[in-house]
Amino acid sequence: MYVIMVYDVNVKRVRKVLKIGRKYLNWTLRSVLEGFLTKEDYEALKNEIRSIIDSENDTVYFYIIETSSRPYRILLGNAPAEFNFIE
Amino acid sequence: MYVIMVYDVNVKRVRKVLKIGRKYLNWTLRSVLEGFLTKEDYEALKNEIRSIIDSENDTVYFYIIETSSRPYRILLGNAPAEFNFIE
Repeated sequence: MYVIMVYDVNVKRVRKVLKIGRKYLNWTLRSVLEGFLTKEDYEALKNEIRSIIDSENDTVYFYIIETSSRPYRILLGNAPAEFNFIE
Repeated sequence: MYVIMVYDVNVKRVRKVLKIGRKYLNWTLRSVLEGFLTKEDYEALKNEIRSIIDSENDTVYFYIIETSSRPYRILLGNAPAEFNFIE
């Protein structure tokens, strides 16, 4: 399965969410990660995210695409370098 | 086709990009919109976005999913209300 994760969480938890996301997925853009995951890793990722977000004030969406090929992705503008303030 | 649009643009252009995105797609989350589009509308959306972004400093990605059903989307946390500072 291909997973696109997008999030909007309180600034206090941004680094934690990003750090967990990067354990499983590739960074794409501020607040967006993506990649192929097994079902087991997808469940593990969700559990880790659930354990640290504030469920009333934070938002995390996962788009699940059942595909063996990477979804078609078009870039307009410039592909950003990954944030380097993390780690 | 189902389109997920994610962006990271300079604050000066955020409102413009969001306004264009909302003409074609539904707002999901800060910097994320999505919806079904015809090819014609997808091209029109890209053209409008291209015309206002700074191609060296802004980033807009479109994920294109060839599907007749909405992709599976999971929410952790709370679905945010749409920003109301726009319009």
